[in-house]
Amino acid sequence: MSPFLAEFLGTALLIVLGNGVVANVLLTKSKGQNGGWIVITFGWAMAVFVGVYSVGSFSGAHLSPAVTLALAVAGKFAWEQVPLYFLAQLLGAMTGSITMWLAYKQHFDQTTDADLKMAVFCTSPAIRNPFYNLLTEIIGTFVLILGVFYIAKPGVGLGALDALPVALLVLAIGLSLGGPTGYAINPARDLGPRLAHFILPIPGKRDSDWAYSWVPIVGPFIGAALAALVFMQLS
Amino acid sequence: MSPFLAEFLGTALLIVLGNGVVANVLLTKSKGQNGGWIVITFGWAMAVFVGVYSVGSFSGAHLSPAVTLALAVAGKFAWEQVPLYFLAQLLGAMTGSITMWLAYKQHFDQTTDADLKMAVFCTSPAIRNPFYNLLTEIIGTFVLILGVFYIAKPGVGLGALDALPVALLVLAIGLSLGGPTGYAINPARDLGPRLAHFILPIPGKRDSDWAYSWVPIVGPFIGAALAALVFMQLS
Amino acid sequence: MSPFLAEFLGTALLIVLGNGVVANVLLTKSKGQNGGWIVITFGWAMAVFVGVYSVGSFSGAHLSPAVTLALAVAGKFAWEQVPLYFLAQLLGAMTGSITMWLAYKQHFDQTTDADLKMAVFCTSPAIRNPFYNLLTEIIGTFVLILGVFYIAKPGVGLGALDALPVALLVLAIGLSLGGPTGYAINPARDLGPRLAHFILPIPGKRDSDWAYSWVPIVGPFIGAALAALVFMQLS
Amino acid sequence: MSPFLAEFLGTALLIVLGNGVVANVLLTKSKGQNGGWIVITFGWAMAVFVGVYSVGSFSGAHLSPAVTLALAVAGKFAWEQVPLYFLAQLLGAMTGSITMWLAYKQHFDQTTDADLKMAVFCTSPAIRNPFYNLLTEIIGTFVLILGVFYIAKPGVGLGALDALPVALLVLAIGLSLGGPTGYAINPARDLGPRLAHFILPIPGKRDSDWAYSWVPIVGPFIGAALAALVFMQLS
Repeated sequence: MSPFLAEFLGTALLIVLGNGVVANVLLTKSKGQNGGWIVITFGWAMAVFVGVYSVGSFSGAHLSPAVTLALAVAGKFAWEQVPLYFLAQLLGAMTGSITMWLAYKQHFDQTTDADLKMAVFCTSPAIRNPFYNLLTEIIGTFVLILGVFYIAKPGVGLGALDALPVALLVLAIGLSLGGPTGYAINPARDLGPRLAHFILPIPGKRDSDWAYSWVPIVGPFIGAALAALVFMQLS
Repeated sequence: MSPFLAEFLGTALLIVLGNGVVANVLLTKSKGQNGGWIVITFGWAMAVFVGVYSVGSFSGAHLSPAVTLALAVAGKFAWEQVPLYFLAQLLGAMTGSITMWLAYKQHFDQTTDADLKMAVFCTSPAIRNPFYNLLTEIIGTFVLILGVFYIAKPGVGLGALDALPVALLVLAIGLSLGGPTGYAINPARDLGPRLAHFILPIPGKRDSDWAYSWVPIVGPFIGAALAALVFMQLS
Repeated sequence: MSPFLAEFLGTALLIVLGNGVVANVLLTKSKGQNGGWIVITFGWAMAVFVGVYSVGSFSGAHLSPAVTLALAVAGKFAWEQVPLYFLAQLLGAMTGSITMWLAYKQHFDQTTDADLKMAVFCTSPAIRNPFYNLLTEIIGTFVLILGVFYIAKPGVGLGALDALPVALLVLAIGLSLGGPTGYAINPARDLGPRLAHFILPIPGKRDSDWAYSWVPIVGPFIGAALAALVFMQLS
Repeated sequence: MSPFLAEFLGTALLIVLGNGVVANVLLTKSKGQNGGWIVITFGWAMAVFVGVYSVGSFSGAHLSPAVTLALAVAGKFAWEQVPLYFLAQLLGAMTGSITMWLAYKQHFDQTTDADLKMAVFCTSPAIRNPFYNLLTEIIGTFVLILGVFYIAKPGVGLGALDALPVALLVLAIGLSLGGPTGYAINPARDLGPRLAHFILPIPGKRDSDWAYSWVPIVGPFIGAALAALVFMQLS
């Protein structure tokens, strides 16, 4: 499998499962409805586990432009490959999100709250304020990427044996720092599904909240770059 | 232990525990009643863990006709052994389900809702629609089997060391894709207990919903075959 | 550390944590009050993890007369050491239980429901019926001991590396088969704390329900012996 | 990375995540609000996992003056380094706590209950009584440190491979012994955030409850020293 295909497939697995757990907890009549934050955070953590384990040996399983950027900044990943990885991640995230929508199609149709329907796809802040929302995403991603550097000790990326530690790292961030913004901490995780939400013919959907969309892109990039710089300073 | 006995025993363990957790959450006066989706999904995941770990070294711990089919399609498992595995899995699932019923006998007797009693045994959709229910089962099983191929890298089956990763994969699918249909993703897991429900003298039981019974058989087989074909294409 | 001391210490750790999680969920004003079945089952599973990991290399970490009996029946453990292990386990369970009571002393004093106070120490059935309660304990312990044989592949007992798989096995049994009787599945786990409940000066306590006390002793012993015999047949 | 910097960074990671999960569960409008004890305990456990894994190879990842004291008492860690470790841990805990406050700034502003706001930072007892609160902290820390000695078998400290077992040990203690006092079991975990609470300009905050502050310092030190002495006796 080529690195492009691996990033595409791994991110698709990440998002079909990650978006899926939100659908399960939020949508009308779903068997996991109101399952709570423990279901949400374990769902995303296991989504990371499955994605990283499945494609780690093919592409290094970045599955996030924030990881790709951090590895490039730290001199561990070639800059010329960055656009390719970004594209694969974005397309994979869209594909995963659309697949999730197919699996939950009837539940989207029976859910009347348009905010809930959008929340399945992309993040929105609990209290809207660009400065603090951005700060929260920067802190969350900083912890994620610093953890990735010290826990996974990545060369050009992650391997299958990093899947569990990195999944538990994402579990930690979700449990602890996910409260204010829903922990995007990955630009593709937010933008890909937001584009899917924008494109898909979902009855009764709201606008895709483009006004907020830059926060879960810029915040993770800043947090990732900062973590890479701190890691380089400390090495 | 022969492969037939191992598949029988492993699937019996899978189902006594998997059906058991549903009984614990749904039946009247059970100590885990209303334990929620996190209990259900961890229960099934740990059931997979116990089943796979116990018999992995004897039969490859398929514990599911969908896994057996996928491995045969991918050329990793002999077609002539497929019927034997199917039979062992079905008989094991029935035996596990009957054992669960004995353990929860008094709670079945005191539960008045016939739908709940059937839900302990076999799956039913949250919103009934053959097309979308089938699609959800196909997607869930596709993710499961693709994950099995890339995570467990099976030869003729799974080994003891695959028990934890595969359990976490099933945890992921339950948390994320289990909402619409209750994630059968294994024909024996649904048909075996449905037959047990049909046969057992459960006071006040309803019919065994045979109209729906083909969905959790056909869906998993389609998803498994598709995953095997995609895996072969990408290899 | 001698095997006797190791069994004593390991069982004390098992019970201070296992009884402790029940206290946390049941007693008045405790911070984990009403934490639910997921808290109970993870608490007992992690108690097993800590107990087995801590003393596995000294005594084989049986921590249960049912495990000791099964290993003796299977010819893996010397019969003449059985009484010593039983005694260490019982004394360890009592000590762990008394330590738990000290940690939760004020919460016992402020809890008025005498049944809840006893439930922290020892098990009682959700629906009282000696035959079915016994059957449930037999089934639960049978699954536990069969799993121990095939998962831990014990020589004279368990080692540190068996701690996680066996903890997950106990998690599985709690989630799935714990609903009717509260899964004693270990005679010392029930009798030791029941004796502690009988002895301790707990204000407003009820009798220690000796009428039921034989069930969580006899059931686990039968289940363990059956599992050992089945294991020997299949080997 | 120097040991001082590693202890500082590791403890900061521990506390930004540990305080963070409490913020997520307690503060107004947070997405994890009312997530329950399972969220709290998994959050702290994963915080330990991330902290220990990240810096284990640099400083032995004590991340707690109680661990440092116990290793010094047991003759495994040089007494002259103890003050340096204590200082790094305290400063790291304050820094982690302040970072958590920045991530949840708006939620602190909108939460009106001053007790909840303080509870995010430092522990307070469910039922106030110095003797029994101290006893509970002694018991919890005793189990923690004894577990660390037998599970992690530390030389001068913990390594990356000890991160998961020690995280599960802390999960066990939180689930089982955290009910009465909120399991400080680490003097820096309580004092550092308490100082941060005292210093930070949090609107509508209450006093920092200095009257109780000695309990989560003295209790863990006593429990740790006792565990070290018991370990030495048994070795």
